[in-house]
Amino acid sequence: MNATNIKIGLFGFGTVGQGIYRVLERSANAHAQICRICVRDINKPRDVDAPRDIFTTNADDILNDPEVNLIVEVIDKAEPAFEIASKALSKGIPVVTGNKAMLAQHLPELIELQRKHNVALLYDASSCGSIPVIRNLEEYYDNDLLLEVKGILNGSSNYILSRVFDHGESYDSALRHAQELGFAESDPSFDIEGFDALFKLVIITVHALGVYVKPDDVFTYGIANIHDADIQYAREKRVKIKLVAQVVKLDQDKFTMFVMPEFVTKSKYIYSVDDEYNGVVIRGECYDRQFMFGKGAGSLPTASSILSDIMARRHDYRYEYKKMNYLSRPSYTTDVTLKVYVRFSATNILHVINFERVYEQYISDNNNYVIADVKLSELIAKRERLNAPDLFFANIPQFYIDRD
Amino acid sequence: MNATNIKIGLFGFGTVGQGIYRVLERSANAHAQICRICVRDINKPRDVDAPRDIFTTNADDILNDPEVNLIVEVIDKAEPAFEIASKALSKGIPVVTGNKAMLAQHLPELIELQRKHNVALLYDASSCGSIPVIRNLEEYYDNDLLLEVKGILNGSSNYILSRVFDHGESYDSALRHAQELGFAESDPSFDIEGFDALFKLVIITVHALGVYVKPDDVFTYGIANIHDADIQYAREKRVKIKLVAQVVKLDQDKFTMFVMPEFVTKSKYIYSVDDEYNGVVIRGECYDRQFMFGKGAGSLPTASSILSDIMARRHDYRYEYKKMNYLSRPSYTTDVTLKVYVRFSATNILHVINFERVYEQYISDNNNYVIADVKLSELIAKRERLNAPDLFFANIPQFYIDRD
Repeated sequence: MNATNIKIGLFGFGTVGQGIYRVLERSANAHAQICRICVRDINKPRDVDAPRDIFTTNADDILNDPEVNLIVEVIDKAEPAFEIASKALSKGIPVVTGNKAMLAQHLPELIELQRKHNVALLYDASSCGSIPVIRNLEEYYDNDLLLEVKGILNGSSNYILSRVFDHGESYDSALRHAQELGFAESDPSFDIEGFDALFKLVIITVHALGVYVKPDDVFTYGIANIHDADIQYAREKRVKIKLVAQVVKLDQDKFTMFVMPEFVTKSKYIYSVDDEYNGVVIRGECYDRQFMFGKGAGSLPTASSILSDIMARRHDYRYEYKKMNYLSRPSYTTDVTLKVYVRFSATNILHVINFERVYEQYISDNNNYVIADVKLSELIAKRERLNAPDLFFANIPQFYIDRD
Repeated sequence: MNATNIKIGLFGFGTVGQGIYRVLERSANAHAQICRICVRDINKPRDVDAPRDIFTTNADDILNDPEVNLIVEVIDKAEPAFEIASKALSKGIPVVTGNKAMLAQHLPELIELQRKHNVALLYDASSCGSIPVIRNLEEYYDNDLLLEVKGILNGSSNYILSRVFDHGESYDSALRHAQELGFAESDPSFDIEGFDALFKLVIITVHALGVYVKPDDVFTYGIANIHDADIQYAREKRVKIKLVAQVVKLDQDKFTMFVMPEFVTKSKYIYSVDDEYNGVVIRGECYDRQFMFGKGAGSLPTASSILSDIMARRHDYRYEYKKMNYLSRPSYTTDVTLKVYVRFSATNILHVINFERVYEQYISDNNNYVIADVKLSELIAKRERLNAPDLFFANIPQFYIDRD
């Protein structure tokens, strides 16, 4: 594709799609142009003025257009996106996408489609917006020295927690603000229940360790149930509560992963990742910790990441999924003990969860909490019951610190 | 090189060379082994036990060995390194190097050699140790949205400033500590006079903007002359003094670059880059600021970066210097005004430098300082005189903030 220009068929013209349109206008050396745009409703008012005749509501108008040599897919539903991506890949048309839900659920099929049709699917924008996490894990941390990837992967829940923690705003008002600013997904439960971070973690794990774990097999607990009492408790302990996703090698053969609110002390890099920012810590045997930090949400940051993937196509770049071919890959386990804080009122959590060990119990008229060790497998087994609105769980990180 | 193993001819077996040896031992999936090691003195005692029969003192033993398919060069002198690298490239043998002095001085010739002999030279380890700055600038920030790369690129001067600032240690004792810990180059003037940071900045600029600027054309001022009075002043103003290298686009057509101590306020990302760490801020039109942070010095962090380059060779990776082929590249200018702090005693700085404007003058029995605007071109014109031991310059960043 080196000599020719990139002719883009764009699916979706919301916040990110319009951002791409604007970024391409600014980038003289991109040699890429949007030829067709597929949307659900052509007449919907939009901030960006694209020529009306390039719009269509029929996906096949783009997929069958011989001029289009790259599909950029930024619609926000997973299944229609998967249909578009797999059709395009099957026709040998490369695809750039930011759709983490689609990727997390369909990566094995999408990897197989890329192999079978010798065509590229790029999705650096899917994880951490403008931070090049996937590309670096794939290309640079391309060895078996990697021990852990841990970070704040969801900009809008982080924005909400920042507003609540640092600005004393109420949770509801902070959520509304996040939506107004375009940080939150159209379905906010994705953000605040941790699924957006989960999907990104699943994608990251493929590129970090060469292993695909189904989203459904990963313990995911969001911030929807956070309460003044939790904020008060965290403040007293001089920690912040952050929604943290992590994949951690336990030894040469095993790793674990989960998404959970976490008490973050001031000494940690992610403590100072505030507002809509994302921050990722990559820990390795020899380089210790590296930290990457940048805007994780919003129209232009995501669009600039999509642009990097578009540009990469000019040089025929594709992910090679090298680590999936390693002779020995670690296997996923939930047989690991976490230390957790659980706030509860109506639910007697001690009757629901088999804790390994209880360190502290606090009972009062207003709220109760325990600090206890619990197996991750136990949390997964009981996860339906943990969503009760009177409960809030947070990880107190130490299990792998003990192992350092 | 995909199917075959990598057989490395290693030049240099000091701190970094021994680190590479140890890292390769740990990395089962690297499929790379060190076959020959060229050193100046075979009998020098070393911490790492490599088989004696793989050592040689004759470079040609390695360069003519048909088994060797990758040269890794980690000696600390620029000219012998250039001789080895250019010989190897001319023979079509790819080279991995961390030698920033060689690269900064010879990049145009080395780029031409790569092109002419269709062979790769990789050097991500040359800039910021374990942080993948070069690769990201080359691959990911591969568009014309980049506005600025700014950072702490020298681990040992930063370690010294951290010890002085945060631990009240004396400058001499901090320098000795840095050397004992293996952070400082064998010639410490490289670190403390800013040349190490300068060389990295020259390399970064090639990959950030596609423009090579000779090291000698760049204003470089180190921390050798820092004095208690400067530290005192900075503390009173609640800033830290950091040695900062930066390349900044002024508009579409022009950029400037320089290495100078800088007053860094608490709100800046690089404020919290302490000890031997490096931190780089990449600013772009759409993604605003991204921050990468990691160990910038030391045996294993540098070695793990060299390993990433070695692994990249398994997939025939090479830098393409794409930005050098852009139709319009910005040109380097020193016609830009900086606001500076200058502490002086014997030298009457107001008679040496033509300041554009003087904001403050402070005169006392012990020391004097001015806060003034000065053209970067004026600093370069007078640079010989600015090294007088009674002078200390620091940048008060604002010229490009005004432009934001």
